[in-house]
This record gives sequence, structure tokens and C-alpha cells, in this order.
Amino acid sequence: MKYNPVTHAIVEKLKEICGENYVFTDPEKLEPYSHDETPAEQFSHLPEVVVMPIKTEQISQIMKLANKNKIPVTPRGAGSGLSGGAIPVCGGIIVSLEKMNKILEIDTQNMMVTLEPGVITNEVNEKIEELGLFFAGYPMSVETCFIGGNLAENAGGGRAVKYGVTDRYIMGIEVVLPDGEIITLGGKRVKDVTGYNLKQLFIGSEGTLGIITRVIIKLLPLPSAKVDLLVLFKDIKQAISLVPKIMTETRIIPTSIEFMDQLSVQSSCEYLNEHLPYQDAGAMLLIEVDGNSQKEVEREAEIIGELCLKHNALEVYVADNYTTQERVWAVRRNIAEAFKVVSPQQSLEDIVVPISVIAEVVEEIQAIAKKYDILIPCYGHAGDGNLHATLVKNPDHSYQKWLEIEHGVLMDLYRLVKAKGGTISGEHGIGSKRKDYLSMVCSETEIKVMKKIKEAIDPNNIMNPGKIFK
Amino acid sequence: MKYNPVTHAIVEKLKEICGENYVFTDPEKLEPYSHDETPAEQFSHLPEVVVMPIKTEQISQIMKLANKNKIPVTPRGAGSGLSGGAIPVCGGIIVSLEKMNKILEIDTQNMMVTLEPGVITNEVNEKIEELGLFFAGYPMSVETCFIGGNLAENAGGGRAVKYGVTDRYIMGIEVVLPDGEIITLGGKRVKDVTGYNLKQLFIGSEGTLGIITRVIIKLLPLPSAKVDLLVLFKDIKQAISLVPKIMTETRIIPTSIEFMDQLSVQSSCEYLNEHLPYQDAGAMLLIEVDGNSQKEVEREAEIIGELCLKHNALEVYVADNYTTQERVWAVRRNIAEAFKVVSPQQSLEDIVVPISVIAEVVEEIQAIAKKYDILIPCYGHAGDGNLHATLVKNPDHSYQKWLEIEHGVLMDLYRLVKAKGGTISGEHGIGSKRKDYLSMVCSETEIKVMKKIKEAIDPNNIMNPGKIFK
Repeated sequence: MKYNPVTHAIVEKLKEICGENYVFTDPEKLEPYSHDETPAEQFSHLPEVVVMPIKTEQISQIMKLANKNKIPVTPRGAGSGLSGGAIPVCGGIIVSLEKMNKILEIDTQNMMVTLEPGVITNEVNEKIEELGLFFAGYPMSVETCFIGGNLAENAGGGRAVKYGVTDRYIMGIEVVLPDGEIITLGGKRVKDVTGYNLKQLFIGSEGTLGIITRVIIKLLPLPSAKVDLLVLFKDIKQAISLVPKIMTETRIIPTSIEFMDQLSVQSSCEYLNEHLPYQDAGAMLLIEVDGNSQKEVEREAEIIGELCLKHNALEVYVADNYTTQERVWAVRRNIAEAFKVVSPQQSLEDIVVPISVIAEVVEEIQAIAKKYDILIPCYGHAGDGNLHATLVKNPDHSYQKWLEIEHGVLMDLYRLVKAKGGTISGEHGIGSKRKDYLSMVCSETEIKVMKKIKEAIDPNNIMNPGKIFK
Repeated sequence: MKYNPVTHAIVEKLKEICGENYVFTDPEKLEPYSHDETPAEQFSHLPEVVVMPIKTEQISQIMKLANKNKIPVTPRGAGSGLSGGAIPVCGGIIVSLEKMNKILEIDTQNMMVTLEPGVITNEVNEKIEELGLFFAGYPMSVETCFIGGNLAENAGGGRAVKYGVTDRYIMGIEVVLPDGEIITLGGKRVKDVTGYNLKQLFIGSEGTLGIITRVIIKLLPLPSAKVDLLVLFKDIKQAISLVPKIMTETRIIPTSIEFMDQLSVQSSCEYLNEHLPYQDAGAMLLIEVDGNSQKEVEREAEIIGELCLKHNALEVYVADNYTTQERVWAVRRNIAEAFKVVSPQQSLEDIVVPISVIAEVVEEIQAIAKKYDILIPCYGHAGDGNLHATLVKNPDHSYQKWLEIEHGVLMDLYRLVKAKGGTISGEHGIGSKRKDYLSMVCSETEIKVMKKIKEAIDPNNIMNPGKIFK
């Protein structure tokens, strides 16, 4: 597919649509839009122009213009993605949703909010907290990520064990299609089987089928009580093999079961200048239980704590107040940032496997690390079988060697994941980072069906090209 | 689209594929496959042949044969659908899944079951109950419906307020495509963002995109405690206007909030020879709360009961033992059956609206009933805004008049629903029953996108044709 360049005439037309002050072509203004949070330089690419529409109709006109002129368009939220989804790898137009950042409605009767895509996720929860409500489907990057990006990637996060991921809470969306037409899917109704589930098709399609311009989200009553347990283990295997048991033996579904190995905890603690009691521990689980009765939540936490001690936990620390809970969770949330400081040459992975096999998968990952003489610290959402194995360059290796090794490690890792019934991304997406590996976990037929759908909706392939598919 | 007939040669080939004893062409054997549970004769249509494959590979061969020869294929589960989805309206081949009825695996480690599509839904829950697990996504017809049909329709049910509907629990599916290719989507993993969410596209596609041949379902720990409240009100409005308040004022999400008007309760009680204390009540709510602590569940039921009494409930009956709970729920579950006895000329509707407006919608439905001089009793899943308004022929009207009236009532009803932000089906599907009305609630663009997807996956339109689209 050959694309046309963004000519001066196209830029002028974009200015007519969005206004002069909302269209940028200066190289220094374009640079921040050339990458996301994927920690690797090889994925970056400059757009030719960045536009910042403030309403759906403008986006419709932009898409009509781009479609007619065969110019690639990449929608972009906060740029906090981890698979290169918002990077304009074919150049063209970036449609930044940062100016479409209004909370349009808080509907307490239906317990729903209507948002523009550029709203920062945390902003919603802060606004509705006083109403005793919350949005349960948010990812770890809650302080920076935009709602629109969460939908585009179907973001996961740390509460998915109990609450599921983003898509569970999305009741309705408005989307601008590649040809500029606007559709509204779903609405303020919690059941809907009217034709195909197009809403779910657009969610998680990584901006390759259209631009989400409005979102209706279902809220839940905010649980009034929660307890966090920080559980220390001698080694990784003991920690991780306990994960399925927590649910099968206690029959309690915790809000979160997060896993951190020693290196993850150390790095994050150093980064934050924090001191957790991690000295002797080879691994930790961070387990949260929530509910509407403090007593009941404490009872459940106690049952889980006892199970942990029965299964060789070194220590169970209880965090039952806000300050301590925040401290512990900050360590977990900042691991990725901390690793970036340790080494900018790394590959943050996002594998997911059946929870029954996570213990053996973590063991085999350590064998892969040994084989290539690199470190692969692990942390992540163990309760979902979703682990952020992070390939970190050996400081003794050259950059060239790292690039060679990286591919080999990823092949080994993805082969392992496939063999164990897992897949290569649980929440970060395929984007440009993993598109060469999609065929390792999806069959030829599955990819063929996906491509047929892409072609049916975007025949000119202008909508975020170079993502998902090779 | 012209289809070819099922010739003698085709029947012979089907016998080669499935074996002589699994292919039927006798008219009396075909008759039961000419209708589902949609209560109206005008929807029935005979197939030309019924085949009963026992494995996926046979279905693949059937589809290849049908696709090559342009013969329509209609997949069929238990035939308990309520929108004509399993009726072969273009003739051709019925692929009945009734012989593919094995529970293939119960995986307690991952809390998942793997099933063939012909398994009866209740069978699963009975098998796993002793393991302390349950499948939370099942519909009211749990004693007859097949798992495959639940997926095809994305069945809802009475527990959706808390637990959501079928699709939330479907981790993986195997599907035979219209061209006979077999794909596996998802697997034993609770997070997965590897490419487009094809799994969700097939779920609820009413058998028009492929035949689901295997299903992996996520289970939950069976709650150890539940309490049902049967709450009596003077009139419909008082009952239904309380529904959103239960969630917004108590911040408790009950398992179920079911609504029954007087006629529904009376009819079902007479049908079952049951006696509920309904004499003075114009309407009832049946509210269920469940959890893992009897005390906590009782506390929540008490809070809800008090709210009901504060808002004019005549009486709150507590059903806290299995026998009483079963009696009350049997009345709710048998309303549809009871109405069929009252009048075979009826239209069982499945509208869904935002819960904030259900009270006014129910009022306006009564105005529509008055306008056409018929009865429209209402019952259903009020907690989801999902109401089974049932148009019942006035015994004084001729059958011809009923047919004329029916269309007018449906137009008025669907216009009302659309105006209130709702849609025409919450759980029964579009099928052949509602396809002429799809454009009343879906935009031209939305239908166009659905059709493009249908054409991309089934270019010969042989897969359950005559459903969803006009």
C-alpha cells in the first residue's frame, strides 16, 4: 500500500477543519508524537502533521479528507501505551484526542458516565468518588492514560481478578469510521443483543478500525472496605504456585493478586526511596480484598493470610489503612518506571497463561534468561495469569548483540507461552511491537478473518496502518 | 440470493460424512426442526434435511459441501430460542448439535469447563455444584437450553444484574466457518488482547457467521448464602420506580431484581397451581442477594427490604430457605409458558431501556395496550431494564385483526423504546422475528458495517440466512 504525503494543501484543509491553532507541523512540536511508552527507540516514527480536534464532526471531516487522499491517520490518547499503538509508523496525520477531554455527564440514576476520549482515567474516579461510585476497569497507568486509549487497547490492570477489564464496563461508544461516517453503538443499557456486537469489535482494535469519540461507562458502588496483604515468600515458585490455590481453596475471589519478584521490588523501592520488608524475600504477592463490610473483608483477608502461611509464606503483612495501602501499591505501580531507569534497553512483555501453569512458566522464563545471559525480572497480575516479564539488556553486551538476543528471547518466550495455552498480550496489545509475532499465537485462518474485517471497514488501509498485522 | 435445493446426491454425501443414521429427510422427522419456542406460527419453516454430526470435522465437511453447492445451513441447539434464530427460513440443511453433548473437561485448577455445544446448561451447574463452583451466565430456560445456543444468542437471564450475561464467562470457542475452516479463539486465559476480539463477534451472532463447536467457560465459586425477597406493591409504577433506587440508594448490587405485574403472577400461579400472596398486589419485585456470609447477605436483604417499605411496598416476604426460594422462582420462570396456555396468539417482547426510565416506559406500554384494545402484561429483568412485554391477542378480535394490530403495536413499542434510549432485544435476539424492525434502532451505517462483516466471512450467504438482516 502506497500512501500520499501530507502536502501543504492538505495542511491548509486541516486548518480549515480544526482551526489554525489546532494543526501542527513544526518538527519540535511533532517529536513528542513520535513515540509512546514502549521502551525501545526502534519503534519511534514522526508524523507529518498533528491535529487536535475538539469535536466529532471535525474528526469525521479529517477522516473523509484522509480517505479521499490516501493519507494514514493514527489516533492518539495520552501516549502511555506499551506496544507502539499510537506511533504513526507510516507517517501521515496524528489525530490527538487531548482537547476532547470533557466529562459530559454523570448519570447517578443509571450509574453511568459519558466521557470524551481524552479524559484522564483517574479524573473520572476522583469526580465520582464522593458519589460513592467508581469505574472498575482501569489500568495501572490510571494517573496518565486517557479513556479513549484504554478502550482502544482494552486495557487491563490490577483489579481484573474480581472486576474484569475495560470492556466489561463500556455500555456505549461513538466511533468515526475510516470513511468519516459516524456510528453510535450501544447506549445506557446493560443488555443488548441487537445484531452483531460491533462495540466489542472496536474495543481493543487498537485504533485500526475507527476513532472512538465518545464513551458511556457503567459504574459500580464504591466498596466501603478493603484490606491489602503483602505476603513474602522465600522464592518465586512458592509465591506463584499459591496463586490458583487462593481462589480454588478459599473460594474467595480477591480484587487483585499481584506478583513481584525480588528484583522488581528492589528496583521499585530504590526508585521511590521506599522501604518494604523485602530483604529476605525472593518474591511477594500483593493481595487485595474488598467489599461492603469491614468485618467480612477482614474475615476473607484472614482466611487468605492463613492459607499463605500454611503454604510456606515467610510473613503476611496486613495493610488495612489508606496510607500503608498506597505505599505498597505505589511500589507495585512503579516497577516499570524503575526498570526504565535501570536500563533503557529492555523489552517489557505482557504474556498471559492459564493460572494453573504460571509457576512452571515463570521457572522456564528463568531458564531462558540463563540461556541468553540476560535478566528477566517478572512481576504483574498473577491472579489473571498475566505477567510482565521484562527482558533487560546485560550491561556487558553490545547494543547490536542486545538487538540480536532480543528477537531470540522473544521467540523462545512466545513459543513457551503458546505451548502452555497462553498468548503474547494480556493488556498491552500487539501494536507495532508485536505484529511480527502475531502468527505465533493466532492461526492463519484467525488472522485471515481479522484482515477481512479490517479490509471491509477500512478498504484503503488508512486507519492506523502498520499495527497488529505484518 | 438464490439457493440450490438439497438433492438426493447431496443427501448421500451428507450420509457419507455423518453416517446413515444421522441424516434425516422424512417429513415427520423434519417437523420438530421447523420451529423454536417463538409463539407464532408464521415463523415456522421446514428444513430439507436434518443432520446430527458428532464431531467438529464432520461439521467442517458439511459446511464445505454446502458452501460449494450454495445450500443454506442453519445450526440448531435445543430449539428453545425466542426469535426464530434456529428456524431454517430458507430451507436447506439443519445442523443439529444435539449429539455433541459431552462435558469434555472440568478443570478445577483454572476453574473452567470445556463443553460441546449440545450440553444442556443446567447439566453443567449440577455437575460442578459439588465442587463448589457455578456458571453464572445462564438464561431462564436453563433446564432445556443448550450451551451453544446460549452463545449464539448471548443469552441473558435473571442474574445479570450482578453477574452479567453469557459472554462474560466465555474464555474460548472453536468455530466452523461458512467455508468449512475451523478456528479456535481465546483459551484458558482471562485476559487476551491479541488482535481483534473475534470471540465476542461470534458470540451473539445468531449462527450467521459460523457454528460454535466447543466452548471454554469460566466458573465462579458458588456463593454459600442467598436470600430472596418477594416485595408486593399496590401498582406497577410503585414497584418499577423503586428499581434504580435499590442500587443507587443502598449501593448494593443484588443478584437479581425481577419484576412481575399482577396478570403475570396470576397466570403463572394458575398454571402451576401455586399460591403466592398476590391477591392485593398490582405488581411484585423478586429481589435476590447472594454472597459468602449468611449474616452479610441477611444484612443486605434487610437494608433492601427496609428501602422497599419506606417506598410504599405493601409487604416484604423473605424467602431464606431452598424450598420457598424455588417456589417463588418457579412462578417467575413459568410466566412465558403460562401465557402460551392463555393465548397462543401473542408476541413475547424483549425490550431493554435505561433503568432510570423503566417506570415511564411501563406506563406508556399500558397506554399502547389501551389504544389497540389488547392486553400487554409485563414481567422480566427489571434490574437490567429488560422487560418481557407480552402482546396478547384480544379474544374478541379475529386472527386477521390480530396480525394487523401486532405490527402496529410493535411499531409503537419499538418507537417508544428507541425514544427512551433503549433497544428491541436484550437477550432473545433479532432472528427472523425482529429483522424487519432492526433499522428502527440501528442506524443505516451500523447495519452497513454489520453486513460488510457478514459478507466478508460468509460471501455466499449460506450461514443461517434470513436472520438479523431484512
